[in-house]
Amino acid sequence: MSGDKKELCGVFGIWGHGEAANLAYLGLYGQQHRGQESAGITSTDGRQLYTHRAMGLVADIFSREHLEKLPGSAAIGHVRYATSGHSDLQSAQPIPVGCWRGQVAVAHNGNLVNAVELRKHLERRGAIFAGSSDSEVFVHLMAKNSDPSWETALIATLSQVRGAYSLVVLTPQQLLAVRDPLGYRPLILGDLDGSPIVCSESCALNLIGARFVREVLPGELLVIDDRGVTSRRPFVEHTSAHCIFEFIYFARPDSFMFGESVHRVRRSLGRELAIEAPAEADMVVPVPDSGVWAAMGYAAESGIPFEMGLIRNHYVGRTFIEPESSIRDFGVKIKLNPVREVIGGKRLVVIDDSIVRGTTSRKLVRLLKSAGAAEVHLRISAPPTRWPCYYGIDIPTRSELIAARLSVDEIRAYIGADSLGYLSLEGLMKCVHPREHHFCKACFDGAYRQEGEPAADERHREASGAARAASRESDLMAPVRT
Amino acid sequence: MSGDKKELCGVFGIWGHGEAANLAYLGLYGQQHRGQESAGITSTDGRQLYTHRAMGLVADIFSREHLEKLPGSAAIGHVRYATSGHSDLQSAQPIPVGCWRGQVAVAHNGNLVNAVELRKHLERRGAIFAGSSDSEVFVHLMAKNSDPSWETALIATLSQVRGAYSLVVLTPQQLLAVRDPLGYRPLILGDLDGSPIVCSESCALNLIGARFVREVLPGELLVIDDRGVTSRRPFVEHTSAHCIFEFIYFARPDSFMFGESVHRVRRSLGRELAIEAPAEADMVVPVPDSGVWAAMGYAAESGIPFEMGLIRNHYVGRTFIEPESSIRDFGVKIKLNPVREVIGGKRLVVIDDSIVRGTTSRKLVRLLKSAGAAEVHLRISAPPTRWPCYYGIDIPTRSELIAARLSVDEIRAYIGADSLGYLSLEGLMKCVHPREHHFCKACFDGAYRQEGEPAADERHREASGAARAASRESDLMAPVRT
Amino acid sequence: MSGDKKELCGVFGIWGHGEAANLAYLGLYGQQHRGQESAGITSTDGRQLYTHRAMGLVADIFSREHLEKLPGSAAIGHVRYATSGHSDLQSAQPIPVGCWRGQVAVAHNGNLVNAVELRKHLERRGAIFAGSSDSEVFVHLMAKNSDPSWETALIATLSQVRGAYSLVVLTPQQLLAVRDPLGYRPLILGDLDGSPIVCSESCALNLIGARFVREVLPGELLVIDDRGVTSRRPFVEHTSAHCIFEFIYFARPDSFMFGESVHRVRRSLGRELAIEAPAEADMVVPVPDSGVWAAMGYAAESGIPFEMGLIRNHYVGRTFIEPESSIRDFGVKIKLNPVREVIGGKRLVVIDDSIVRGTTSRKLVRLLKSAGAAEVHLRISAPPTRWPCYYGIDIPTRSELIAARLSVDEIRAYIGADSLGYLSLEGLMKCVHPREHHFCKACFDGAYRQEGEPAADERHREASGAARAASRESDLMAPVRT
Amino acid sequence: MSGDKKELCGVFGIWGHGEAANLAYLGLYGQQHRGQESAGITSTDGRQLYTHRAMGLVADIFSREHLEKLPGSAAIGHVRYATSGHSDLQSAQPIPVGCWRGQVAVAHNGNLVNAVELRKHLERRGAIFAGSSDSEVFVHLMAKNSDPSWETALIATLSQVRGAYSLVVLTPQQLLAVRDPLGYRPLILGDLDGSPIVCSESCALNLIGARFVREVLPGELLVIDDRGVTSRRPFVEHTSAHCIFEFIYFARPDSFMFGESVHRVRRSLGRELAIEAPAEADMVVPVPDSGVWAAMGYAAESGIPFEMGLIRNHYVGRTFIEPESSIRDFGVKIKLNPVREVIGGKRLVVIDDSIVRGTTSRKLVRLLKSAGAAEVHLRISAPPTRWPCYYGIDIPTRSELIAARLSVDEIRAYIGADSLGYLSLEGLMKCVHPREHHFCKACFDGAYRQEGEPAADERHREASGAARAASRESDLMAPVRT
Repeated sequence: MSGDKKELCGVFGIWGHGEAANLAYLGLYGQQHRGQESAGITSTDGRQLYTHRAMGLVADIFSREHLEKLPGSAAIGHVRYATSGHSDLQSAQPIPVGCWRGQVAVAHNGNLVNAVELRKHLERRGAIFAGSSDSEVFVHLMAKNSDPSWETALIATLSQVRGAYSLVVLTPQQLLAVRDPLGYRPLILGDLDGSPIVCSESCALNLIGARFVREVLPGELLVIDDRGVTSRRPFVEHTSAHCIFEFIYFARPDSFMFGESVHRVRRSLGRELAIEAPAEADMVVPVPDSGVWAAMGYAAESGIPFEMGLIRNHYVGRTFIEPESSIRDFGVKIKLNPVREVIGGKRLVVIDDSIVRGTTSRKLVRLLKSAGAAEVHLRISAPPTRWPCYYGIDIPTRSELIAARLSVDEIRAYIGADSLGYLSLEGLMKCVHPREHHFCKACFDGAYRQEGEPAADERHREASGAARAASRESDLMAPVRT
Repeated sequence: MSGDKKELCGVFGIWGHGEAANLAYLGLYGQQHRGQESAGITSTDGRQLYTHRAMGLVADIFSREHLEKLPGSAAIGHVRYATSGHSDLQSAQPIPVGCWRGQVAVAHNGNLVNAVELRKHLERRGAIFAGSSDSEVFVHLMAKNSDPSWETALIATLSQVRGAYSLVVLTPQQLLAVRDPLGYRPLILGDLDGSPIVCSESCALNLIGARFVREVLPGELLVIDDRGVTSRRPFVEHTSAHCIFEFIYFARPDSFMFGESVHRVRRSLGRELAIEAPAEADMVVPVPDSGVWAAMGYAAESGIPFEMGLIRNHYVGRTFIEPESSIRDFGVKIKLNPVREVIGGKRLVVIDDSIVRGTTSRKLVRLLKSAGAAEVHLRISAPPTRWPCYYGIDIPTRSELIAARLSVDEIRAYIGADSLGYLSLEGLMKCVHPREHHFCKACFDGAYRQEGEPAADERHREASGAARAASRESDLMAPVRT
Repeated sequence: MSGDKKELCGVFGIWGHGEAANLAYLGLYGQQHRGQESAGITSTDGRQLYTHRAMGLVADIFSREHLEKLPGSAAIGHVRYATSGHSDLQSAQPIPVGCWRGQVAVAHNGNLVNAVELRKHLERRGAIFAGSSDSEVFVHLMAKNSDPSWETALIATLSQVRGAYSLVVLTPQQLLAVRDPLGYRPLILGDLDGSPIVCSESCALNLIGARFVREVLPGELLVIDDRGVTSRRPFVEHTSAHCIFEFIYFARPDSFMFGESVHRVRRSLGRELAIEAPAEADMVVPVPDSGVWAAMGYAAESGIPFEMGLIRNHYVGRTFIEPESSIRDFGVKIKLNPVREVIGGKRLVVIDDSIVRGTTSRKLVRLLKSAGAAEVHLRISAPPTRWPCYYGIDIPTRSELIAARLSVDEIRAYIGADSLGYLSLEGLMKCVHPREHHFCKACFDGAYRQEGEPAADERHREASGAARAASRESDLMAPVRT
Repeated sequence: MSGDKKELCGVFGIWGHGEAANLAYLGLYGQQHRGQESAGITSTDGRQLYTHRAMGLVADIFSREHLEKLPGSAAIGHVRYATSGHSDLQSAQPIPVGCWRGQVAVAHNGNLVNAVELRKHLERRGAIFAGSSDSEVFVHLMAKNSDPSWETALIATLSQVRGAYSLVVLTPQQLLAVRDPLGYRPLILGDLDGSPIVCSESCALNLIGARFVREVLPGELLVIDDRGVTSRRPFVEHTSAHCIFEFIYFARPDSFMFGESVHRVRRSLGRELAIEAPAEADMVVPVPDSGVWAAMGYAAESGIPFEMGLIRNHYVGRTFIEPESSIRDFGVKIKLNPVREVIGGKRLVVIDDSIVRGTTSRKLVRLLKSAGAAEVHLRISAPPTRWPCYYGIDIPTRSELIAARLSVDEIRAYIGADSLGYLSLEGLMKCVHPREHHFCKACFDGAYRQEGEPAADERHREASGAARAASRESDLMAPVRT
């Protein structure tokens, strides 16, 4: 994806290892792609909790000195990209608090659908909130619960929240890990020489030499303490609603989740896209890094050669100082360099994973053309993104989503591509293998699985719009019209 | 005082000034002596609150960039020295939170006697606490209150807390300032060109060119908004219990509080000490900076010349790296330099304001002697500190207080002075002018004004000890016995 | 290349642009791959020079505030990786000094063969050196010259130095840019709306929207001032000796240098390698990022599918904290993640650009095998590196170069690959197109172009060794022997 | 002194102690008052030199980690306040360089009269200068010398420089310490358990528990190595020219230099001032910290009580953010707080050590009056500063010196004091005890001891002006004229 969307959060937890904080640090580093805004670790030595949180990248935030101040044999950690726009330390996680049961820290990947409502309810009963993250809601609900067991309090809490969550909870006595009943976000169970580990993506296990055990099941609660890992299934079982976008864009290609290897799905998307949206072109060019695997699939299927016509700049800092005599398409250029010698005079099939607002794609097409591309045929390895996400992905409101407002051909005209093609929803679904796994694809079809999303009203209001969108569904290709 | 005790907190608030945050910054800088561990400012533009808090000194924490991110015409601020030993950002103030009434920030100077009890009560009802400071209790109680007015909620809150507090509360609509009914801690009302200001010490007003209006009364609540300053007296009136230690040590000498100028009281202490505990000596040497004024009084009364035989090093950083081949009395030396040429061969009356654990005084005496002092007659401008403080001063537990364990002569022997003399409690009280002002002197006599201090039990347990201490009260001098 | 070698330096210069420092900053950012240790910019307003240098990445070092303190319409910049191991600010460039002609600043990419000798000579005449970089030699020689013109002084200076240099020199009146007579390092001339630019790689031009004009010629001196760009050719012309390693590894693939596009050469290397060193395998896997293009060439030629079986981690910080219970092959793992699902059970042709000490390759092979690779056939897109480089590339001494000590089969055994194949020197040279361009390939064959390299003696001493190496040249493949 | 002038530099050296760098750090900390802009330490382990330099205070610059990277048993250090206005790291000291004899580092307190001339001479011979400090001249001259011994080279170097210097030079084999033949700046020899120490002020010895041995003599060179301390007197002996301003303002009162204890001299100045320039007043108020001792002398002599009517703020940061609605006399207020209760309605004799430009004194008088002072009688414990200093004190040019332009009464009128009195030069000299010590008092009388000061011409030009100044010398008092 070339820029408009943001990665979300990653969690990590380990119990019973002498270097818990160090391993959490590496486990977060291995999941850095899930959030670069802030990071934090809470450890425990069985008596109390120790926390260090800061803004920035894992490798910059934690020095050896910081890790030494996180003693004990258990730890949880979190990397975060703020979805709410409140980018402050106050909202960094884990969130450590004291309450009547003692100390507890929570780290959360996901988004609650009824957070605002719960927050209001809690506030009416006197709760105070330090930051703006949904995650504070969990600790409030647990604290309000009167059962002496954290485990019971957590179960009661989860029965009140609706939405997506993969949650790790640390107390001096226990590590609790739970995944929402629909399994929106991934959560993996691993093992390092007998020490249980939970993490958002399996790639975190590889880095520290830990073994992949299995995925935590949707609705499963793991109670991890010195007696080992106990599995509980306190919730009514549902058909799962895994976030299909993890496959399309978020997850690291070397991760395994939802019963599949990410890179394999991503490559299938490309193959399918080549079948559905072929192009007359000289080369297939991915928008790196996320588009690489789909592009390889597209190239393999179409027989058009794969070329690295765009190079990603990996030294990008957080803010970049642009000259006043502003440079055309600066924002894209600072990240992507077209390889003029490769693409000059050539007809390109450019593979990206989504178009959000359209502005970045527009700049990208312009950049490629000014670097000499003869034609730019943009192919998206997913259907048009027409609906916002209420489960943790930072997709803007419908009014900002270009595909909610414009037809595919209008989008093509706006971004200036010679042709534009999306993958169909059917094509997308062919690339994943349901068995027990079912997916949330509401960002494409508006078919949200849970009642009561904030969008409910909006959806009804926009019913006719949705109908129009649906009618356009058959028209996913916008070829050149001259 | 030569080292064992720590300064506490200072607060500041301003309403209706275009440069509210800048003035808060200077107002905190002018009260930096009240707390050097962390500082913070919350401002409001009438819509929301903006906060910046960090560990360190005011001048280091706030850059122009930080101040620019604190917009609006009202602000409160806080400087802090942690009394609880938890020295972390989490406990820095102001504490900004959201609750059902909206946003609110609280900054607090003092200590609640029933904080632990209230905290437990709140926790049992589901409250969560982010840090360890008493001040969070205020925001919880206010949030729990169901009256729509912050003012009413604050009054209800204060009726539940016992202890010392000078409190400033900021919402987008109001600045509330309140002082506990016994008036333990100071709180001053000032005015800058029509903008009301509240602050812990009047010296903060001088720096920014503001006018001293009056002291906020014990139990008085000031409601400050665009209509001006409204005074409310919602509490039963009590005889005041001003902290006598503010005069002895904490306050800056150029401040005015409790109806007196600090330096005048401090000098009287020295005069009275000279009468009660005379010494045969060649010069009066203060332990700078706090002992200077009492030493001037002692010199004036005794006729013994005042000399700056000790110089304070003002570049002291937070931590100092000591050589492994450790330097004798390093901790004192890094702060105080004896002027060998002044004190060499001389008999010194050294004026300090207190002896806490005795270790620093012991090092100091040794330092002076090794710099050539012939005799060191230590005189303390206050009675022996025999009881802990529950109102915001960081006096250690009784078992650590040397005067709670040892007689004056035993103390003298421990610290190695040639003689040791304390001011009597009667002498101390002569130096302040009651009128409507009454003082808490529990750290000297154990006569706590409020019921239910955590010490109650301890006091009963130690009744015999207290009796012993009292019996020793008549023996405040420990001359040389050879 | 998977780790042992380090990138070197990049330079940038611009004259006559209102945002000279800002553009230098972006020009350095675009060349960040040439050096990540320190960076610096010197600007001039026609009166004096202004410099900011620091350790770290361009995007971290320069804030808007720093750039504002670099006024004027001309600037030079430098990114650096220390070759000497002295990693300190003292050696960061540009080096600004004052001398009898006034102020001057120098930024240098390359390495002088006779630096030690010149330095000793200068020292014997009283010169002092602040740092350890060769680049100080230039300013000393210029300062010693008695001609009033910087241009003349520079020419005289260059007649005394031997080695590789692409040099930019800034005074308040002029920007001088020069490339050594053999043209070891690249230097490009560009243009931004009439403002001349010089830089190490053309990719810097693309970022700022500047136009590629041409390569600065070997031995050409450009005098740039308000009258424009004047070309001088003060040196005897030689056959060029471009560093072949720029093509193999250093340069960014989207750069154009030595008359070729980098990625095109790199891909040819892969094709040629496939012909010379074929492998029975299931997939071609590049060591990213540098091995990608050669791997694509290898795959195309061999028909074996290209696969991204290794993913590079792009969030690597400067130092990484390893757990005490050390993780096997930590150093490689923190940078490269094998995609288990891709390579599991597969026979891999792994494409890298060089083997230096062999330790990293050994770890990489182990990592791939432990991730399930059935066979690892390592193919190197260059001949064995047997000789040190005296022209700016950080190749260690012969004793550390594994290929100088061991036969190809011994190397294969050491690193644990199932087979190992290098490209022949003849094969390498087929991929570049001489015409007027000739190359230095001394790191492969020891045939240094310049007399008097420090290695001269070493070479004679090791003549027999070289003979042995040459005899092994025919044996570049080491297939599995079981 | 209330603000216009700046402290200068301090040096430290130690040989043969296992914790050389740590002790240098403390030795610099103890001399922090001599320079707060930058600090640095160079150590040696007998093989090479190690240096850490940075902008800021000693306690902020050096962490334990930094000190650990300064190994070896010998070290020199430097604290600096830039006199030239170039406040950059480049000019921080010690200055470590390499030259033909090997590595050497130099730290310098003082100022060379012929630095510009020497610099030009060196530049004409090809020398390059990295920074703007005079101290680079030393290393250049030593490097140019062809004698193999550093000792000889230093002697030859010193025969070429004119001016004030107390210099420490470190090589891996030796510590050289030398004081200029006129002994402008202090230099002390101390001893810590057999390890020789040199430092600018004796107070540095006290902190680390070292013994004061003696002052290094004017023109004496100490050669310190593993064989001990060897004294050499390579220069023609002169009558000394100690800087009288060290006594008046610079030195710390607990230091001993020029055969006297600083505080004793300073107090005598006050006594003498009371005799020469009496005042009808209620109290004597020092401008802290430097005016305290003279004020005590004035009070003792006059019988007028000493009062701390001004309190110095010791938390001043480097830069202070002033509100836009600027606060009257902000610059003085941020440093000094008048104690309103002390001075209100009172007639003050305010004791300061100098008036430079007059602007700060003017603000101070205004501040005191606005705080209620009835009358302000300013008394300066030195004669009017009428001439610039060429020996290391940052006194501005004549045109900026108020006493060079205006009569005492005109100055009084400008600063708004009710009366103004200076000490006469004769009075000043009565307070120091010549014996073998003679003083430079050129800043008062223009009688520079050395030929060829840059001021020579200026002095001749201003001869009549000087005559006028001299004639005014008899008129050092400016009483109120109404």
